[in-house]
Order: sequence, then C-alpha cells, then structure tokens
Amino acid sequence: MDTSTIKAVLCDIGGVLYEGNTPYPGAVEAVRRLKAAYPVRFLTNTTQKTGEQVVVKLQNMGFGIDASEVITALDVTKTFLKQRCGTATFLLTEDARRFFDDLAEAPCRYVVVGDAQENFTYAALNEAFRTLMAGGELLAAAKNRYFKDHEGKLSMDAGGFVAALEYASGKTAHVIGKPSVDFYRLACDALGVRPEEAVMIGDDIESDVAGAQAAGMRGILVETGKFAPADLERGIAPDAVFPSIAAVAF
Amino acid sequence: MDTSTIKAVLCDIGGVLYEGNTPYPGAVEAVRRLKAAYPVRFLTNTTQKTGEQVVVKLQNMGFGIDASEVITALDVTKTFLKQRCGTATFLLTEDARRFFDDLAEAPCRYVVVGDAQENFTYAALNEAFRTLMAGGELLAAAKNRYFKDHEGKLSMDAGGFVAALEYASGKTAHVIGKPSVDFYRLACDALGVRPEEAVMIGDDIESDVAGAQAAGMRGILVETGKFAPADLERGIAPDAVFPSIAAVAF
Repeated sequence: MDTSTIKAVLCDIGGVLYEGNTPYPGAVEAVRRLKAAYPVRFLTNTTQKTGEQVVVKLQNMGFGIDASEVITALDVTKTFLKQRCGTATFLLTEDARRFFDDLAEAPCRYVVVGDAQENFTYAALNEAFRTLMAGGELLAAAKNRYFKDHEGKLSMDAGGFVAALEYASGKTAHVIGKPSVDFYRLACDALGVRPEEAVMIGDDIESDVAGAQAAGMRGILVETGKFAPADLERGIAPDAVFPSIAAVAF
Repeated sequence: MDTSTIKAVLCDIGGVLYEGNTPYPGAVEAVRRLKAAYPVRFLTNTTQKTGEQVVVKLQNMGFGIDASEVITALDVTKTFLKQRCGTATFLLTEDARRFFDDLAEAPCRYVVVGDAQENFTYAALNEAFRTLMAGGELLAAAKNRYFKDHEGKLSMDAGGFVAALEYASGKTAHVIGKPSVDFYRLACDALGVRPEEAVMIGDDIESDVAGAQAAGMRGILVETGKFAPADLERGIAPDAVFPSIAAVAF
C-alpha cells in the first residue's frame, strides 16, 4: 500500500478501538498518533446509540475524540429523512428513537430499521410490515449481520430484521449505513478528500473493507473485534492487515 | 385442463375452506362433493397448530374431514427430525412446540422455525442464531411470507424470520412445508398417485400453484383468502382459476 497518498483516515469504532468497555491495548495512543498525522473521522453502524452517546463512552475510556469527529448511521439516516420527508415508523432502541423526535411531521412514510434489540417484537415488526404493504419504503440504518454483545456473545444485528421485512413485504431496503457507498462518500466529503485519498480501518471484512473499496477507498483490516481467520478466505483482499489499531503504521 | 386424468385432489385449508372461523359459502358441500369423487388430502403450512387441532376447528365448522386426511408442515417436520436425529431448537407457538415433546433426545442440532407469532422474541431468535453459528442446520417448517390474521389484517408469517436467520447466520434453510417439492411428493405418495395425476387447490399463487406445478402437479387457484388480482400478473399461470372452492368444477 502506497501510504504517501493517504490524506485522511476513516476508522470504525467498536471492535477496533475497544471491546465491551475496555480500550484495546495501545488504542488510545494510536488514535492520538493518527489524529496528529491526518484528519480522522470515526464511523459506526451502531444504531443503538447516538453520536453523542458514542462520544461519551469513548471519552470515558480515555479517547481524545469529540462529537464532530463521529459519524453514525443514525446521523446519515436523519439527514436522509430530513431531505425527503419528516416521518417514519422506527424499529430502534428507545435512545435511538428519541434522536428522531425533532423531525417534522409529514405525510410520506418510511420504515427505519436499526439495531432495536428487545424492541424487535412480533407486534413492532408487524406494524412495520403493514406500513410497507401500505406503500411505505424500507430504510436500513444498517444491515450488519451480527455483533458481539457486552458478554462477548454473537448477537443478531439489524441486518436479519431488515431481511425479514424484505422477504415478507417483497420490497428491497435502501441501506444507509456501511457498506453503503453513500455513507463512505459522505465521510470523504466531510473531510474534503477524494475517496482514493482516504483509507478505512475496520474489523468487518465485508462492511468495512469491501464496502470502503467499493466506494473507491482503501480498506484496512484489523484482527480484533469480530475478525475471524476465515474472513481472509472470502475473496476480499484488504489493502493492508494489522493485528490491531495499535499496530497500524502509516 | 384435462380433468379426465385427475385421480386425486390436494387442497389448501385456510383461505380456501374458511376465513377466520367461518366457512366460505358452499365450502362444506364442495368438500363433500370432492371427497365423493376423489381421494383428497388437505395440506396446510399453518405451523401454529397441529393436525389434530386443525381438524377440530374444521369439524366445528361442519366440514366432514378427519385427522387422517390432513397433512401439516409440522407432520412432515417431525418425520424429518425422526429420520435424522431427535432434537432441535424450536421457534414455534406453545401448542406446536408440544407436538415435538415425544422426540428422543439426541446430540445433533437443528433449528426449526414455524409461525411462532409472539414467541418471535429477540431472545429466542438470538438463541436460534447462536445454535446455527455453532454448527446447527436451519429447517423452515414453512417459509410463507404473510397470512391474514383473525381480524383480517396481513401479518408476518414464518418466512421473514427464516430469512432473518439465514441472513444473520449465512446459512440457507431447508424448507419442509409448501412449496417444497418434498411436501407435495409426500402427499402424492400417501394417496398412491403420481404427481401428474393430482391437482392442488390453493389461494397462494406462489406456494400452492407454482409450488405444485414445480412438483409436477397441476395447480388450481381460488380467488379467496390471500388472493389479490395482482397475483395473476406475476408470471405464474394456474392450470385453472375459480372464484372459490364452491365453484371448483371437475
């Protein structure tokens, strides 16, 4: 990888900077080093929490990151809804739902699906399904397959529930979060760089690495978080692989 | 359609014989007439109820049908599990779950998904997902998209939740119920006829009509239940279309 052409860095959060509530060894220092060398934005498909909540958690762990440096799938979803209409049926956690409270009421209808956790009830899914069958459009704030929960167990992320609504309704979701090209392009715009001048660092070979590459960026894999050795046998070639964020060298 | 070659009749239940708790006009007499002329089996993908419960409901509505004439997706699922192993993680209603209580314990692992309704909780889906990620295989007792509930509202059927687990786990479900060719072939075997000698009557153009045709049978559509006029524009040509079961003439 030619590091001389790097003008900006995008970086995933969970599974790259920390796991559970603990920073990976050397991660706080690695963030300091990257920020000293490049403009950096921290991107997350976590739709359980708003950017402000994400930043509080990062700061509590010692990361020198502020809210303006974080872009979440909820931010991009809100921008999308503001541009098109003001209302939707939401499948989200309570916190994430409140983030949309200031949207104006409007007649057009979307269904927004994030990582709603226990709010993925049959009743709530049925309400969303009926909105789609009545002409609504499906927005996936994210379409991740699974994540590691606070006990380290793999748990279903929003993706499966998006797939459930797609199958039942016959509609195809518009995906807002990673690996949507829109999300990566928006982050590059925010940094004022072209995609080929940016690198994306993440632990998800599909969403972070292949997604960034599809947007014209370079994708760098770290072997923490949800990384598994079999990920390297799935036909996706990262531009670089490092054991952890602390080992990222450029 | 050449009716002279019909030697047996397969017939869907909900949406063909009755809606809610009420037989369609002329349906009881139509069943009597069909049974007088042909051997008949009543097939249902309903995985909320066992065959015995289905029959009780039919008899209460006046249908002269007994348990030996009903084949449910749960029956075929139980046969499948008995042949291969004795245990599974079940996503089903309480009644349907009890139907599997007499299976022997065994080490091999399946996940069985039926129309679990309110039992489709995030916790239960996650348990099923983790079984799959630990090497389990996914069985869809049925993969229907939706059904009309007792209030006449469209509601999500098992299919969406099968799709959710497929997406999250990366595995493909083995479908047991309609439109699985296995299900139709098993019904033909039970009647001692070849598929081309049987017709299937149903209200679901995909599962009943296209499914039966894929199994080598003729598929007859009735315009009751979940039928909608747009169904006839989906590239599937029923061998015959009748306004209702009462109008079926052969």
